[in-house]
Amino acid sequence: MDFILEVDKVKNIMRQTYLADGKRKENDAEHSWHLALMAVLLKEYAPKEVDLSKVIPMVLIHDLVEIDAGDTYAYDDDGAKTKRAREKKGADRIFGLLPEDQGKWLYDLWEEFEAYETPEAKYAHMLDNSQPLFLNDATDGISWVEHGVKKSQIYKRNSRTGEGAPKIWEYMQELIDKHVEKGHVIGDI
Amino acid sequence: MDFILEVDKVKNIMRQTYLADGKRKENDAEHSWHLALMAVLLKEYAPKEVDLSKVIPMVLIHDLVEIDAGDTYAYDDDGAKTKRAREKKGADRIFGLLPEDQGKWLYDLWEEFEAYETPEAKYAHMLDNSQPLFLNDATDGISWVEHGVKKSQIYKRNSRTGEGAPKIWEYMQELIDKHVEKGHVIGDI
Ligand SMILES: [Ca+2]
Repeated sequence: MDFILEVDKVKNIMRQTYLADGKRKENDAEHSWHLALMAVLLKEYAPKEVDLSKVIPMVLIHDLVEIDAGDTYAYDDDGAKTKRAREKKGADRIFGLLPEDQGKWLYDLWEEFEAYETPEAKYAHMLDNSQPLFLNDATDGISWVEHGVKKSQIYKRNSRTGEGAPKIWEYMQELIDKHVEKGHVIGDI
Repeated sequence: MDFILEVDKVKNIMRQTYLADGKRKENDAEHSWHLALMAVLLKEYAPKEVDLSKVIPMVLIHDLVEIDAGDTYAYDDDGAKTKRAREKKGADRIFGLLPEDQGKWLYDLWEEFEAYETPEAKYAHMLDNSQPLFLNDATDGISWVEHGVKKSQIYKRNSRTGEGAPKIWEYMQELIDKHVEKGHVIGDI
């Protein structure tokens, strides 16, 4: 019960991505709900061996560490340097609120996500990277414009997205090019 | 893709329950995220045959119809009368945005939830009814106080909650009695 109430705080961890209506930014709980639903709907684009019963809890909990560590914007290089240590400490505390077996299971799933090696982690990262791109596309790229994001930065962040679902990554590239043409993303490559 | 963006709107469908910090009300996306996570964590309290691979998509989508029909507060009797027709129309439109097989699958899951007959639907309803109660408990029952909620109303709404997880319902009853004693719920029975 402590854990169930503690994680409520993730509803107030704000991200840099705007909702599809462009009116406000989304929070981590909303983002994670969206990923879980996409995990189910886009399964056909994932490698065959992907096990949804692992992916879904993985995406539901992947951002809980931000309750302690805060959200680090995808293109914030300074924040990225200390992110790992801040998040590990958060994971220890937050998953430590659960009964030991459940805590260990979710901690390990979070580590698996971060390690980016298993098919489930690759699929989860594809979801985590494509969902904000779809929202950015729906809002004429306001978040990209606000942060002066370059195409090279998006490509660097998504260098492995194709491993999680090649066809979705192809579609994302089309969207990125469209926004370079429209001037919402800086076309430096 | 139309569906994935359309469902973004559920992040702006506000409920009557306050977040655990009491600072604002929660929306349907946050609520559904919380239910999916609870579905995983409270599985041991559910009837043995419950299949999480059905429960999770069920709770993720159970409130999407409110994009068209709006949220009907649990203790709003007038709203309840027209709820079913408004929600069915919403389900037709929203799930109709998906490829036919996926649309039918999710529509049927939503109907299964509403029908309240299968073990998965009973477990999902238990989650749907206990989560706001846990948040109300965390906020000294502000939502109950605001609406002048009676113990008999809570019991009526939860008349079948025990079917989804008897031990959780027992625990909920303890919480309700605590809030009757504190004067947050009207002790009419
Ligand atoms: Ca993140």
